Amino acid sequence: MIKTPYLLFLGDAPDQLSAKVAQGIYDWRPENAVGQFRLPSCGHDLGIADMTLAEGQAAGAKTLVIGVANRGGLISQAWKEVLIEALNMGYDLASGLHNLLEDEVDLVAAAAANGAALHDVRIASEDYPIASGKKRTGKRVLAIGTDCSAGKMYTALALDKSMQAKGMKSTFRATGQTGILITGSGVPLDAVVADFMAGAVEQLTPDNDADHWDIIEGQGSLFHISYSGVTLALVHGGQPDALIICHEPTRTHMRGLPDYQLPSMQQLIDTALPLARFGNPECQVVGISVNTQHMSEDEAVAYLAKVEAEFGLPTVDPFRHGAERLADALAEL
Amino acid sequence: MIKTPYLLFLGDAPDQLSAKVAQGIYDWRPENAVGQFRLPSCGHDLGIADMTLAEGQAAGAKTLVIGVANRGGLISQAWKEVLIEALNMGYDLASGLHNLLEDEVDLVAAAAANGAALHDVRIASEDYPIASGKKRTGKRVLAIGTDCSAGKMYTALALDKSMQAKGMKSTFRATGQTGILITGSGVPLDAVVADFMAGAVEQLTPDNDADHWDIIEGQGSLFHISYSGVTLALVHGGQPDALIICHEPTRTHMRGLPDYQLPSMQQLIDTALPLARFGNPECQVVGISVNTQHMSEDEAVAYLAKVEAEFGLPTVDPFRHGAERLADALAEL
Repeated sequence: MIKTPYLLFLGDAPDQLSAKVAQGIYDWRPENAVGQFRLPSCGHDLGIADMTLAEGQAAGAKTLVIGVANRGGLISQAWKEVLIEALNMGYDLASGLHNLLEDEVDLVAAAAANGAALHDVRIASEDYPIASGKKRTGKRVLAIGTDCSAGKMYTALALDKSMQAKGMKSTFRATGQTGILITGSGVPLDAVVADFMAGAVEQLTPDNDADHWDIIEGQGSLFHISYSGVTLALVHGGQPDALIICHEPTRTHMRGLPDYQLPSMQQLIDTALPLARFGNPECQVVGISVNTQHMSEDEAVAYLAKVEAEFGLPTVDPFRHGAERLADALAEL
Repeated sequence: MIKTPYLLFLGDAPDQLSAKVAQGIYDWRPENAVGQFRLPSCGHDLGIADMTLAEGQAAGAKTLVIGVANRGGLISQAWKEVLIEALNMGYDLASGLHNLLEDEVDLVAAAAANGAALHDVRIASEDYPIASGKKRTGKRVLAIGTDCSAGKMYTALALDKSMQAKGMKSTFRATGQTGILITGSGVPLDAVVADFMAGAVEQLTPDNDADHWDIIEGQGSLFHISYSGVTLALVHGGQPDALIICHEPTRTHMRGLPDYQLPSMQQLIDTALPLARFGNPECQVVGISVNTQHMSEDEAVAYLAKVEAEFGLPTVDPFRHGAERLADALAEL
């Protein structure tokens, strides 16, 4: 668990894309962010108060979160001064960079001297159990994609927001670096040792109230050659009651795999549902989430209507139109 | 790579079951075993020459392999004297125990002093790449099971033996601890970090002659809640041209999962083949391997005939009748 709220460190982020972790935290958990800390050369503004480390601390911040990705995922010397000062003031640090905080001797020393925690969310810091497959109480929904990076995290977070707005009981369960930083906890599933993947997902989504929904962030795709094993561990460890299909219709090939075409949504359903029903015979596909960012509004609306007619399932782009209809579908289950 | 040949350390193994790693090495790679080393209290005999450490070394042994599993996978003090003496004489050590050689300070010190290697095949000692999905030359066959421990390793090793006997080009590719100790190399797939599972399988089964077969040891089952992700990484990383279905018909539930019935062989085929064909459109199910150890010879023969008629595929128990018909099926592809 990473202590919240955060002060968001944007460093020298040149643009919004490089600050997408900070942006994600602010978009989805504004209550977790008291302000932003920017170096003079920073070219992006989250639209939240600029604060010094002292001001952030006065506003209650417990952790300085590195909300920026630079080339190569490195921790630059320009950042070091600020990070060490923060540790000396009593902040914890959290990061999703490839370059680990715990590999930087000066940061490790400063953290030790101050009793501060260094959270590298890219590595698995816990021991997880082997999955037991035991039926758990409460309900679970999992976003699964025809490809990686098809909008699964966005869909899950938007669904959580819509369910909360409707007064439903729900918890977003992060399984990747950005999701973990947004919410302060979760499992970095792609960094877990193979034997324990499904067990980590079980532990992440424990027994709960009968009317409570865990909204499990998906990873990879059952058809993505590089990461499909991670996805299947989510399907089996998560024992979902509901699946939401995520699709990006303009892709010309699987992400990172130029020789592979995307599977169709029907192919994904035909493959995923029997596997999911082995773990939970009640599992159903309840809706479709389409990432239409590369379509015009007219194209998007037409495409969503076509898919909805074809599959007979609520089909939305949660970024354009919200996830209310997906929340409704879960409420009806 | 573990240096061969081995001297097989049976320690104080009370029976054949506890010495099954040593037995597996001797059964499948007798040329890798110059002899056995037994403590006075050992209750099993491989039927190979008893040797002292000096005699083993004179016979060419390079590595002392711990071929015994004791309760809890521990390295007992009774073994330590022998292991340290072996290191001092210039042997490497190899082990698949949970209790790692590299966690024993006296062994680590003796190895360092003698320039000897400690091989813990239960941990992944290499960095593996992310899978690329690129089509590789040569052919690959993967054993997949309706459950864990259904005879996949045995089937793969028997198939390798039959193919070698027929003069076909084949290599058994180990993906588990016992297989790695038997052959001296492989990938301990269940110990690999999630993101790199499929990449490790790609690396294990590289480009090869057009008429060469990699026989990939299977792990887990696509329907085993705890380990299915490992299995899917084999299906996608291995890009198999051929699948062999492995089944143990007397199981009353999935191994370690008392609440789960086994899937049918047809269910497994229906699920595995579309996933495998995504990675290799030519993939076919070529045969069925049944573990009939809990059936009489008559029951076994009748069951094999029934399955063969039902699926129209060569169906054998390689332990009872050899794997020649599976090798024939691959030769015909």
